[in-house]
Amino acid sequence: MANNFNNNPHRRLNILTGEWILVSPHRTKRPWQGKTEKSATTDLPEYDPSCYLCPTNERMGGEFNPGYDKPYSFVNDFSALLPDVEEETYENGLLYAEAESGICKVVCFSPNHALTLPLMSVSDITEIISLWQKEYIELGSNEAINHVQIFENKGGIMGCSNPHPHGQIWAQNKIPQEVQKKISNLKAYWEKNKRSILEDYIEQELKLDERIIVENEHFVALIPYWAVWPYETMILPKRKLAHIGLLSESEKRSYAEILKQLTIKYDNIFNTSFPYSAGIHQAPTDGMDHPEWHFHMSFYPPLLRSATIKKFMVGYEMFANPQRDITAEQAAETMKSLSKRHYSQEE
Amino acid sequence: MANNFNNNPHRRLNILTGEWILVSPHRTKRPWQGKTEKSATTDLPEYDPSCYLCPTNERMGGEFNPGYDKPYSFVNDFSALLPDVEEETYENGLLYAEAESGICKVVCFSPNHALTLPLMSVSDITEIISLWQKEYIELGSNEAINHVQIFENKGGIMGCSNPHPHGQIWAQNKIPQEVQKKISNLKAYWEKNKRSILEDYIEQELKLDERIIVENEHFVALIPYWAVWPYETMILPKRKLAHIGLLSESEKRSYAEILKQLTIKYDNIFNTSFPYSAGIHQAPTDGMDHPEWHFHMSFYPPLLRSATIKKFMVGYEMFANPQRDITAEQAAETMKSLSKRHYSQEE
Ligand SMILES: O=P(O)(O)O[C@H]1O[C@H](CO)[C@@H](O)[C@H](O)[C@H]1O
Ligand SMILES: O=P(O)(O)O[C@H]1O[C@H](CO)[C@@H](O)[C@H](O)[C@H]1O
Repeated sequence: MANNFNNNPHRRLNILTGEWILVSPHRTKRPWQGKTEKSATTDLPEYDPSCYLCPTNERMGGEFNPGYDKPYSFVNDFSALLPDVEEETYENGLLYAEAESGICKVVCFSPNHALTLPLMSVSDITEIISLWQKEYIELGSNEAINHVQIFENKGGIMGCSNPHPHGQIWAQNKIPQEVQKKISNLKAYWEKNKRSILEDYIEQELKLDERIIVENEHFVALIPYWAVWPYETMILPKRKLAHIGLLSESEKRSYAEILKQLTIKYDNIFNTSFPYSAGIHQAPTDGMDHPEWHFHMSFYPPLLRSATIKKFMVGYEMFANPQRDITAEQAAETMKSLSKRHYSQEE
Repeated sequence: MANNFNNNPHRRLNILTGEWILVSPHRTKRPWQGKTEKSATTDLPEYDPSCYLCPTNERMGGEFNPGYDKPYSFVNDFSALLPDVEEETYENGLLYAEAESGICKVVCFSPNHALTLPLMSVSDITEIISLWQKEYIELGSNEAINHVQIFENKGGIMGCSNPHPHGQIWAQNKIPQEVQKKISNLKAYWEKNKRSILEDYIEQELKLDERIIVENEHFVALIPYWAVWPYETMILPKRKLAHIGLLSESEKRSYAEILKQLTIKYDNIFNTSFPYSAGIHQAPTDGMDHPEWHFHMSFYPPLLRSATIKKFMVGYEMFANPQRDITAEQAAETMKSLSKRHYSQEE
């Protein structure tokens, strides 16, 4: 890479969304006098009688959780999407709207209130992936559901209101915006090259070895060249798989392993339970063939300088362009150099 | 509007960006047990000896501010964009980047450390607009600058590290992403109708009178039909003006008046100094004709339920689609009903 790009402002292209990101590597020298966050709480009990996600407890909607001992999912008591909404469009001059239907679910990762992904065993994580698979396939087989978004908001700073380890699934009729952007670029590349753009991208990244954080038999975790968030990463299967339902048993284990390894690295950056939103982008469940799809999981963590100082995506970022200070390569360097063992378990 | 859209989940189209927003009106019933913010500090001194933006004080870069008594601008000591960056592109397989150059400035709105827009006089606000005009024209006349982004981050929650009333300007060579999206839609409408889409939109909104917050001789402040943030608003001149440099004296005054009126409404929602990012989108300064442009100023405030509870744009919003709970009409209803007098000045 042209040398001065590492120190001078430049823009990078996200080949999946077609969008640009402004990089200002020289700007890390800026002092910070602004808002700081509370560091994440640790030392939680394994069972919290007031937690509405712990086994056997009462939920906010009045139902009771079963005494579950494996990952457990249920319909969100405050779903943003509802099934059985009549299809309808509204057009009045310059106002356009359309009804939307869907199903929102909560996925408890573990009965243990105190755990997080990096502290779970690989086989526990494999169980979570199995539940994600089941949900993707079951929800996706519903005629009215054309897209299944699996995600996790981790940490109060990411809008998560309960530390009990859990994620969510919002499944819906229309294909959402961010996915639409990716579909066009994945498709264009597939049609031109009859190859998955992400297979080619992984190949190139493995050769360059500048942004790879962890690699195992079937998976790679890397900081994409076009990363927006300071420590944004992406987990990809080496083989083109349109969705997680297609994982072989050994791939599923590889996926669980890399999830554990990557989230350990995250916690080790600032010796804190690292907040993020993570999400899996996979083929729409619209009944069409999606040879262009190569599923991937992205992590968008807000922290920049310490456990209490985040990157604000405001002003310029909202009106003009996402912007980052440290480069993807600097972030990768940091994450690569960190221990593979969780900071709380160092000897 | 079809009645059940007000209570049922639906999507609305942003006619300026071409993007959709998911609306879940029924979801306001959800209880909130998550993160709360500190309420904004008030009772600031008019002059703070430790503030690097107050007149005569030393800045972080070591320079001293003049004893300014009107709005004052200077080059940001920690600019994210730098002038004189050589044009250069980098292409290596699936990696694309290009050098970017620009100028970042800080605009102090007032010498008085304790003021905010709603507490300033209309003629003080007119002076700020005059400085914005001067900067847009001067920066824009630079051959290398094709876009001038004027914005304000207000409040610690919006990444603002100093309460001294100020905004920023990031001027740059490339036209940023959010603006690119708007250009295509403004252009398509102009070419088809030989009318400004926003002139037609204002006409329709004034007729419907469901989302108008304030109106005066030359300006309108409204909650756009496709608003993303709970109390997102937009200020527009009634006449198609490509940029603020074209305002007549009486339009400039109207603009200052509506800025004051709208920001008073904001502070009155939760009786707090209301945080937001605000930005002006106007014609690129690329030397081309922009008959399609109609400048407008948008406010993106993060608060949702109270002075301490914000809307988190995380998880689903990052991976799928922006989502909101209260409808634009409910938010407009609230803002319309609020006093025109600032809560701190009520008798
Ligand atoms: O320039 P400031 O005020 O230090 O920084 C603030 O505004 C910038 C422009 O929106 C953002 O990039 C920063 O994340 C934010 O903290
Ligand atoms: O569903 P929760 O956890 O109550 O809410 C959280 O995740 C949702 C989906 O990303 C967001 O819409 C909310 O703003 C956030 O607070």
